[in-house]
Amino acid sequence: MLRQLRPRSAFKQPSRLIAAWERSYSIQAESASTVKLQDIDPAKVSVTKTTTPKELVPQNELVFGRSFTDHMLSLEWTASEGWLPARITPYQNLSLDPASCVFHYAFECFEGMKAYKDKQGKVRLFRPTKNMARMNKSSARIALPTFDGAAMIQLIAQFAAMEERFISSTRGYSLYLRPTMIGTQRTLGVGPPGSALLYVIASPVGPYYPTGFKAVSLEATDYAVRAWPGGVGDKKLGANYAPCILPQLEAAKRGFHQNLWLFGEEEFVTEVGTMNMFVALKNKQGQKELVTAPLDGTILEGVTRDSILSLARERLAPEGWIISERKYTMPELAEAAKEGRLLEAFGAGTAAVVSPVRNISWKGNLVECGLRPDQEAGEITRKMLGWIEAIQYGDEEHEWSYVVPQ
Amino acid sequence: MLRQLRPRSAFKQPSRLIAAWERSYSIQAESASTVKLQDIDPAKVSVTKTTTPKELVPQNELVFGRSFTDHMLSLEWTASEGWLPARITPYQNLSLDPASCVFHYAFECFEGMKAYKDKQGKVRLFRPTKNMARMNKSSARIALPTFDGAAMIQLIAQFAAMEERFISSTRGYSLYLRPTMIGTQRTLGVGPPGSALLYVIASPVGPYYPTGFKAVSLEATDYAVRAWPGGVGDKKLGANYAPCILPQLEAAKRGFHQNLWLFGEEEFVTEVGTMNMFVALKNKQGQKELVTAPLDGTILEGVTRDSILSLARERLAPEGWIISERKYTMPELAEAAKEGRLLEAFGAGTAAVVSPVRNISWKGNLVECGLRPDQEAGEITRKMLGWIEAIQYGDEEHEWSYVVPQ
Repeated sequence: MLRQLRPRSAFKQPSRLIAAWERSYSIQAESASTVKLQDIDPAKVSVTKTTTPKELVPQNELVFGRSFTDHMLSLEWTASEGWLPARITPYQNLSLDPASCVFHYAFECFEGMKAYKDKQGKVRLFRPTKNMARMNKSSARIALPTFDGAAMIQLIAQFAAMEERFISSTRGYSLYLRPTMIGTQRTLGVGPPGSALLYVIASPVGPYYPTGFKAVSLEATDYAVRAWPGGVGDKKLGANYAPCILPQLEAAKRGFHQNLWLFGEEEFVTEVGTMNMFVALKNKQGQKELVTAPLDGTILEGVTRDSILSLARERLAPEGWIISERKYTMPELAEAAKEGRLLEAFGAGTAAVVSPVRNISWKGNLVECGLRPDQEAGEITRKMLGWIEAIQYGDEEHEWSYVVPQ
Repeated sequence: MLRQLRPRSAFKQPSRLIAAWERSYSIQAESASTVKLQDIDPAKVSVTKTTTPKELVPQNELVFGRSFTDHMLSLEWTASEGWLPARITPYQNLSLDPASCVFHYAFECFEGMKAYKDKQGKVRLFRPTKNMARMNKSSARIALPTFDGAAMIQLIAQFAAMEERFISSTRGYSLYLRPTMIGTQRTLGVGPPGSALLYVIASPVGPYYPTGFKAVSLEATDYAVRAWPGGVGDKKLGANYAPCILPQLEAAKRGFHQNLWLFGEEEFVTEVGTMNMFVALKNKQGQKELVTAPLDGTILEGVTRDSILSLARERLAPEGWIISERKYTMPELAEAAKEGRLLEAFGAGTAAVVSPVRNISWKGNLVECGLRPDQEAGEITRKMLGWIEAIQYGDEEHEWSYVVPQ
């Protein structure tokens, strides 16, 4: 399908132009250019409670992202009016025209965040401003609308509080929240969507490692590339995910748990599956270094990644650790492993917080990442999980934890 | 959001495993592994005609992809059963769970093709096997199901014949057909979809240039990259489209009709907007050459691109033209333009067939592409449109034209 070539005015949606024109006349004194589009107003939310509350899924039967709570939060946006009042309604299907642009051109972005319950029964979010800031960056990159992040956090908090019965205060349990924005305009013309839907659904989830850490084996992928400078690999777009499945399946076919994404002839290590990647090593001078790839446009700006870096700078640097956001390569890791300098490696993300890596299959060799055979996670991996969970579950009071008003 | 790291068996959807297990027991003698999944069977189609036929949009009011016919064709697929019987129904909204994977991870691919009406009133498709082959490549790349292309063409032909009243035999008018496949599994786990929907909608369209060719001005994009080696830029995935809008808007802001995608330090010319790009030039030896970028994984395998290359090899090569699929750069074009050797340039795709280019803004200069100020298209551009339309509308009998049985 081809975008029709037209002069610049065509990039403004005709519907938007007409709406702006009508509006400018109906409100008489104001010109179209001074019409301020509505942003999100949490006070205007309408709530319709379900009349058929779901039974809770037993804790030991929870599967990530498979069961959902009673309600959902949704907000429509139009290019002529901006954000319409939010609605909390029973969880329900979306009814969309088959020509809606989300189905054809991947006008979609999302966030992953969690609500936790502390020992006092208070519901807490973890660094939600980070998620909202990133979602605005993602949506802007694909010509979807942006929004007031603080207002959206208020709505998400209200929604999470309503679904409080789905959240267990048992360590490792939480309510996974999935803010999602999709383009809803019904046209096959390739252009900026004139309408969108922002919605949040919630899935109760259990601990990533119910019986303790399990280190995984990775396969380095050299035939497919996840992201590229000048591309969109640093944004949380749907577009970045579907193309990742095949390399994951290929790795799985050969018995590996996940694939490791490399970049370029240098074989820079970038991400693991859909997580950021960290390694702890001793450099050639014997100094300990915690390394992750820099935000050069090919790396997702992970909230967990950022939290690990902050905590490491605060708590590991004083112990002599160097904390590095720098490029590093598979040859560098292989050399460090060979020389006994690779201490540990782990993925980092919202679902698992940290996920320890046992080894990496690369060019026919298995690069061992520092764990003894009887060991499932290294010291830094364990410390990070403890530090971050203590903040998430409110055991440690910290500015990162957002207590939901009750 | 993070893929849960699990051993290989987890990559098989639990629902699929359970379904396969149940099936293997319900059919007793067969083991799950010998269950052959159903492919598409055109004989099993069910047809429900609309009771409220739409009024035809007047020809001069047709906008690409904005209005649709009375019906749609849809086929569901499940990992346990394969393709379920096709249904032609009134055009209607899709009702999908908000957790459906199409909304989150861009499990979606599509095709663009057209039905034409010849002077005898017969409906014709143009090279539909090409579209079906490409769609299967696209779907396989994102772990969506593949299908029997010939069977699908039969169904599309039946659908197009039903919508025959929306097709005008006036030159330039046609029925744009949009086969679309989406992943419908309701889970936030990142994995291969266990269910999918393949549907076709149809939009009556008018001529791309109602009053004759209009050459466009392009802006070369140097800050964003459409596709890269090891990526998915050669597949017709939704994922390739949303990220293209911003560079188009940026170009439009500065008064250009479209953006031209370059790649790498060499500034290879790749595609124009969402079309393949062709240039006609005289090389330094004075020989005429028609050039387009090779299918190196970063270029969409355009059906129009392929048709132009075939016709050029058949009809231009005997006149002394060299027909080249090779890499070429902006510096090469700029040099050829400066030396008066750049003859013409055009985009190629289903919507416009060919779209002439007047000039390209590159590094602060305007590279003129060979047209005189009073000229809107070059000789090759005009010839190609004539040759291809003659086949599409059945004026010339050709194996590329598929006559829909009546």
